[in-house]
Amino acid sequence: MKMAQLSTASGVPVATIKFYLREGLLPAGERTEPNQAAYDDEHVRRLRLIRAIVDVGGLSVASARRVIEALDSDLGLAETFEVAQATVSPAAEPAAPDDERLAQVDALLDGWHYLPTNPGRAAAARVIAAFEGSGQTDDRGWYSAYAAAALAAAEADLDEIATRADRDAQVETMVVGTVLGDALFAALRRVAQEHVTSQRYGSGE
Amino acid sequence: MKMAQLSTASGVPVATIKFYLREGLLPAGERTEPNQAAYDDEHVRRLRLIRAIVDVGGLSVASARRVIEALDSDLGLAETFEVAQATVSPAAEPAAPDDERLAQVDALLDGWHYLPTNPGRAAAARVIAAFEGSGQTDDRGWYSAYAAAALAAAEADLDEIATRADRDAQVETMVVGTVLGDALFAALRRVAQEHVTSQRYGSGE
Repeated sequence: MKMAQLSTASGVPVATIKFYLREGLLPAGERTEPNQAAYDDEHVRRLRLIRAIVDVGGLSVASARRVIEALDSDLGLAETFEVAQATVSPAAEPAAPDDERLAQVDALLDGWHYLPTNPGRAAAARVIAAFEGSGQTDDRGWYSAYAAAALAAAEADLDEIATRADRDAQVETMVVGTVLGDALFAALRRVAQEHVTSQRYGSGE
Repeated sequence: MKMAQLSTASGVPVATIKFYLREGLLPAGERTEPNQAAYDDEHVRRLRLIRAIVDVGGLSVASARRVIEALDSDLGLAETFEVAQATVSPAAEPAAPDDERLAQVDALLDGWHYLPTNPGRAAAARVIAAFEGSGQTDDRGWYSAYAAAALAAAEADLDEIATRADRDAQVETMVVGTVLGDALFAALRRVAQEHVTSQRYGSGE
């Protein structure tokens, strides 16, 4: 199909498609004439993926490019997870968490199997430092409830990935799921907070 | 204490404190001389809160101001949750989700008590639209696993809030927990993904 048809099929404006081509997010079409290229269903699929991770996932174009490079590589499942995770996690952190906070995270996640370089480990330490630094305390097991919720979500991520037919489909689900899973949880937690608040404290209705 | 001492006590540079004062995030100190003001422990506490929601929570200054206004108001628990949620959720959404997606979210959250205006409802519909729009499918209950994880997290949020001594402390925990809870879950999910991947697929170690 031509550029205009690709735009119709994907719902992405032509100017945006050209931008993604220039930025290397979308592979070039097959050149049919000096000034024209042909695109196929793979381009439609890739455009939908880009929209999902950029628009809803909130990734920058540079981050999206790194994720897509991992997707197009022949990295294994665990390695692609590493790239997707490193990309989705903020690159420039304000400060490295201190060893005491990291030890607190390791104690919380006792029995979990992960490398000390997992970006989530440092990120969790920073969140806990900010939580406690702002005067908050974990009196009723807030951290461990979140660890249990995160573990259940990761099990669901891997369950879903396991149903995909081949490595490419698995990696695509992993990338989209890593980016959109955070947004899905945040959205559903807002609804759940209203539900639990109304259950416990009643509502005006 | 003077400005310099407030800076030392809070770990926030003087220039940043002045910026927060100008932006209305931090209440003015008590004026002691034409060109000098006195600050107290409340200012230290507030500065730590601002740092938590701006630096780790990633809120803009304008969003942080709205959250802090809700904190300083005499709104009830449920209403303050609404403000905190509306602020933490992105303000300008690309497009309203269609009714079919909203109905899908309502079916997923069957039995939950929430208003149709809850920002998480529309946000969840958008995430699901992006997930399915990028060619993904929910074959193994990915959505409902996330709903269960979000409900468990919200229960933990309210458990923690319930231990706080008074309304001000409760609202502060709600605000900090709403902002930092998303970041904590995202961080711990990254670690959990590595743990579950290594359990299911083994690792090179």
